[in-house]
Amino acid sequence: MRRVAIVGVGETKFGEEWERGFRDLIIEAGTRALEDADMKGNELEALYCGSMTPGMFVSQEHVGALIADYMGLNPIPAVRVEGACASGGIALREGYIAVGSGAYDIVAVGGVEKMTDVPTSFATNALGGAGDQEWELFMGMTFPGLYALMARRHMMEYGTTEEQIASVAVKNHLNGSKNKYAQFQNKITLEDVMKSKPIASPLKLLDCSPITDGAAVVVLASLDKAKMYTDTPIEIVGSAQASDSIALHDRENLTTLKATEIASRNAYKMARVTPADIKVAEVHDCFTIAEILAIEDLGFFKKGEGGKATMEGRTELNAEVSINPSGGLKACGHPVGATGVKQAVEIAWQLRGEAGERQVKGAEVGLTHNIGGSGATCVVHVLRRVD
Amino acid sequence: MRRVAIVGVGETKFGEEWERGFRDLIIEAGTRALEDADMKGNELEALYCGSMTPGMFVSQEHVGALIADYMGLNPIPAVRVEGACASGGIALREGYIAVGSGAYDIVAVGGVEKMTDVPTSFATNALGGAGDQEWELFMGMTFPGLYALMARRHMMEYGTTEEQIASVAVKNHLNGSKNKYAQFQNKITLEDVMKSKPIASPLKLLDCSPITDGAAVVVLASLDKAKMYTDTPIEIVGSAQASDSIALHDRENLTTLKATEIASRNAYKMARVTPADIKVAEVHDCFTIAEILAIEDLGFFKKGEGGKATMEGRTELNAEVSINPSGGLKACGHPVGATGVKQAVEIAWQLRGEAGERQVKGAEVGLTHNIGGSGATCVVHVLRRVD
Repeated sequence: MRRVAIVGVGETKFGEEWERGFRDLIIEAGTRALEDADMKGNELEALYCGSMTPGMFVSQEHVGALIADYMGLNPIPAVRVEGACASGGIALREGYIAVGSGAYDIVAVGGVEKMTDVPTSFATNALGGAGDQEWELFMGMTFPGLYALMARRHMMEYGTTEEQIASVAVKNHLNGSKNKYAQFQNKITLEDVMKSKPIASPLKLLDCSPITDGAAVVVLASLDKAKMYTDTPIEIVGSAQASDSIALHDRENLTTLKATEIASRNAYKMARVTPADIKVAEVHDCFTIAEILAIEDLGFFKKGEGGKATMEGRTELNAEVSINPSGGLKACGHPVGATGVKQAVEIAWQLRGEAGERQVKGAEVGLTHNIGGSGATCVVHVLRRVD
Repeated sequence: MRRVAIVGVGETKFGEEWERGFRDLIIEAGTRALEDADMKGNELEALYCGSMTPGMFVSQEHVGALIADYMGLNPIPAVRVEGACASGGIALREGYIAVGSGAYDIVAVGGVEKMTDVPTSFATNALGGAGDQEWELFMGMTFPGLYALMARRHMMEYGTTEEQIASVAVKNHLNGSKNKYAQFQNKITLEDVMKSKPIASPLKLLDCSPITDGAAVVVLASLDKAKMYTDTPIEIVGSAQASDSIALHDRENLTTLKATEIASRNAYKMARVTPADIKVAEVHDCFTIAEILAIEDLGFFKKGEGGKATMEGRTELNAEVSINPSGGLKACGHPVGATGVKQAVEIAWQLRGEAGERQVKGAEVGLTHNIGGSGATCVVHVLRRVD
């Protein structure tokens, strides 16, 4: 496979974007990415887009073709990929493989979800499709409940406290306050999280990522063409994906996401790096406990020490490893199909030194970690600036 | 890119399969394809699956991970792709690119849809997501209505008759009567079609493909490994995809699907063949008029002559070009996400000489043609037996 780099990035404001529809969001992000790459639409040879459940949210499937059409990109091939909340990460990986293969030189990879046109109860139900419908959701389980089980088990096995878990939210809101694209730009205190209303104990409202509208796009090019578009190509040096049981009850272990372990080890190997080389990472904090699992499973901290490490500030901006500088899913927001692509947008900005107030100093290698469901899919990418 | 071949194929019975669920169908097809390749599941390195709207039909998304899990394939990467009724064709193309790139040596490509668990009116609505929700479906349009407009225009421009259009159904039911996997194995007469109840004039009930449950799987391998699994690898010698406007009212022309023209010309060029080299083709006859458009747009017959050619028997089994030997979407059935893969299964059987009563004699090159929506996506593959 050929070497592949990100040459342009763009995203919309994340939030309750009631003035704009599904197609408006992805067009805005796509246009920004093209402008960022100083590229015309007709230079694109194909389009990949992650979206989890536009059929349920806006009654629209066939969104690859819809986007190609509304972006004025016909007749290029347009492919939607889906892997629940990992849809964006999978889209990035498929775009990477397609350019790496030589099938195309330049492709756009997008992610989009429009989630606020339906009542919250309907959204919770639609998102339930990320789990095992017949054996989990049909029985009354919801995603806050699934992650609450993981949190309880982590607390029991490792003595992790509710305060440690809550400290993830405090950090991510602080990071989000420095991100103009974030859904929540307000700082919160540990007390705010602890006093927020229980959703699925031990998880409280401020432990949960929100329902969000938003889109993100990156433009990929073969490395030999990348320099035509940017002085700072961000190369995809590692890309890996892994699957695990879709139902939580089928796992041997509730406190490790095996798919994260496998995907990250394969991505590190491919990129020839170790966790210690990663100074900035966007990880999948759909719930605060998920970030604790992630930083352990990715190898940044030992199993069981993620909560303590977070509470001690070791994952803050410019600490040992800067986790979720964008604010993460928790504060930046979680338009499910867009999240995996937005993570790559943020890491690209970080590696280019364009992250403003939330810039991680001297970041040269970054990582994105995108989860589908309760861990049945994990996609990890390692990105590096090419000078 | 490396050369890639189909080394195993399998499909379920298509029909109203009320005894089996979504996951049962894809597992059955997958198991058959593995058995056909004489391969164990752990030899697969990744999984691609086309499914249009499992969220709407069975409240289940994240179906890549679901299938990997229920097939016992964890932790390999699993990707669902969606492009409305072209989801299966896109899955095949993505699997082809992935093996061609060298990312994997062996992948399974599946397609599945479970459509009969919901009322027909709900299904019609869900399928409407293949069109432009905001400008077509929301206004009351349905897919029979869209194809009826194309039929009326074809009749007006070229003098095509309702009987000529109906003759597609008669031929496809005759082919389907020779296919044990077909949903409809009954022969019908021209009179049966003409007297069937109007759905969206000029299209009548027997001009329409049915609502179907079913799944199909092909196993792909790099050509250098293919001979380990089969004596008759079926090489993918051409693969192309194109997009067009998602709404019918945005097209310059209602009687040509531009995406078919572009995708087929690109696939022919890649395969170094002309339409005259193709002796057997599975084309997208979601409605009878769609087969007439397809055989013209693919270059088998001149524009406007498809109806007459069909009525004259020139597309029957072992005539000039054998169109839809499986019975097509009309008689074999149309489980939307599975259709594009089932087309490849049928062509593989034909090129191997394993199609029994419906065998096309001396077929060495075959074609699959899969459409999404009213023509916003088209995927064409050219397949050739490797001796």
